[in-house]
Amino acid sequence: MYNFLTGIKSTGRPHLGNVIGVIYPTIFLTKLTKLTKNVILIANLHSLTNLKYIKNNKNNAYKILAVWLACGIDSKQFIFYRQSDITEVTELLWFFSIIYPYNRLKLVHSFKENVKKQQRINTGILTYPILMAADILISKAELVLVGKDQLQHLEIARQIAKKINNIIAKKIFTLPQSIVIENLIPGTDGTKMSKTKNNIIDLFASKKEIKKQIRKIKTQKQFSHKKKELLKDNLYNIYIRLAGKEKKEKIKKKCQMGYEHAKEELYKLIINKFKRERNLYKYYLKRKNKLETIFKKGAKKMKKIVNSTIYEVRKAFECN
Amino acid sequence: MYNFLTGIKSTGRPHLGNVIGVIYPTIFLTKLTKLTKNVILIANLHSLTNLKYIKNNKNNAYKILAVWLACGIDSKQFIFYRQSDITEVTELLWFFSIIYPYNRLKLVHSFKENVKKQQRINTGILTYPILMAADILISKAELVLVGKDQLQHLEIARQIAKKINNIIAKKIFTLPQSIVIENLIPGTDGTKMSKTKNNIIDLFASKKEIKKQIRKIKTQKQFSHKKKELLKDNLYNIYIRLAGKEKKEKIKKKCQMGYEHAKEELYKLIINKFKRERNLYKYYLKRKNKLETIFKKGAKKMKKIVNSTIYEVRKAFECN
Repeated sequence: MYNFLTGIKSTGRPHLGNVIGVIYPTIFLTKLTKLTKNVILIANLHSLTNLKYIKNNKNNAYKILAVWLACGIDSKQFIFYRQSDITEVTELLWFFSIIYPYNRLKLVHSFKENVKKQQRINTGILTYPILMAADILISKAELVLVGKDQLQHLEIARQIAKKINNIIAKKIFTLPQSIVIENLIPGTDGTKMSKTKNNIIDLFASKKEIKKQIRKIKTQKQFSHKKKELLKDNLYNIYIRLAGKEKKEKIKKKCQMGYEHAKEELYKLIINKFKRERNLYKYYLKRKNKLETIFKKGAKKMKKIVNSTIYEVRKAFECN
Repeated sequence: MYNFLTGIKSTGRPHLGNVIGVIYPTIFLTKLTKLTKNVILIANLHSLTNLKYIKNNKNNAYKILAVWLACGIDSKQFIFYRQSDITEVTELLWFFSIIYPYNRLKLVHSFKENVKKQQRINTGILTYPILMAADILISKAELVLVGKDQLQHLEIARQIAKKINNIIAKKIFTLPQSIVIENLIPGTDGTKMSKTKNNIIDLFASKKEIKKQIRKIKTQKQFSHKKKELLKDNLYNIYIRLAGKEKKEKIKKKCQMGYEHAKEELYKLIINKFKRERNLYKYYLKRKNKLETIFKKGAKKMKKIVNSTIYEVRKAFECN
């Protein structure tokens, strides 16, 4: 029996990569092992480090919840934790800030990448991993499902947990373990699917939009049956990842006929495979009161988990 | 009618410099002008940026309140705001972090000084001014009494206020104005009196301790009546600052007899001048329940001030 946590940042609708990389593995895990206190974080404070997400931040949180529900997660089995509902997480941000070295934050990959990309870095981009540590530790998570690129952040959470337990000479925080999903679906350019790279397939967009995104998939100059070539064939790989290996002859044939045929086949696959999810998504998004109720319930349950932790931390820092 | 704010960090008892530089000017100001919502901050989150203050943090907050009361502040006229009682201030820390450039924080004097002094800088030392901005803006302060060295922090608070008002196209935050006290009392080494410099005179210490601190005062090689020399005479200046210019002949005579006589005179002056305050301090510190009640009342009043602000901010960032 483990406390489980995973999360998605509220920067618009989750895409195919999120569904395959986070949502389905979560559903799979909960069926596989007995988990207690399953927490799904909707990180609507982290999303703000990019100022363009201030607008629609509220609606984006609803969209993420709607996708989780549409993909078949049982809302009774999970605590949906909308970050901004639990003020105490920012209190931990401060307590953790005073024990975490500034110099080490500057070495975090995601920060360094941001520095390369833009000139004006806001302070939140630097302290991002500390807020993430606060989320993980405040949830008392033992198993955390993360992407490979988040492993460094998880390590920071572990370091902070150790250090605080050390200072206080009491095991307030559990050291979280990571679960990493390896078999991800590539984006339309062949790299990791990500909104910032503009290489996503948005399952919940209009059919026209999905068609457009599929049309963008970078293909090989010429289709080849050779194993080595197949590994590099982006369209083939996306298809197989969704349809299963038993359909490989079918898609090979289409690819050979020309990639436009293969793309049409992929489009049909997606529309058919996710028909139910696409309908449910629309259904939930029309019922925001229902979604808000789920968040409110989640906040209530989170408060209970948080209270004992924050009480201990305040006491430790003599702020009680 | 202005909203007024000042504050002291909870790093032990306030010393003579705090009393002359912050507490007396505050009492003077409230008699001079009509102030509304007078907030006195006891910064027990800021104090933690130096880990050695974790221990005794609770008691240090009581000590500061006890000194304010002992110096004659009317607790009914003031809201005593113990920082850790208002979680929302750390929420603002996050919201402000995402709009304040990381590069500018690195240029703050206090941060640069810290970088010079120590190798291991914690993240809280970097984000210190943002938490201070949160305190100032959450209190809706219009006039803020600060030391000269805090002016840069106040400017950061003003920049943040402007930027948020701008983003939201609504005047959520008041731009605070500073009041700077110029006529400070020097420390025993002639520079600004400060605990970190170990040059304080601790009014509320034992008589023996005060004697020891006074003995540490750096004096001139030889006493001189010349105006230029008097300006540099540390002991003479401390005495005059406390006793008033009308006593200058008396202390000159003692200095001429030898600085040990002058030091004895300063010691007597301090013990007599602050007799009442020293007794009251002991009185209050024995009544921690009374002090806790004042903090609790303060927290209640602060919550009312904070609620409307935080509501507006959450709405602005779509985190409501």
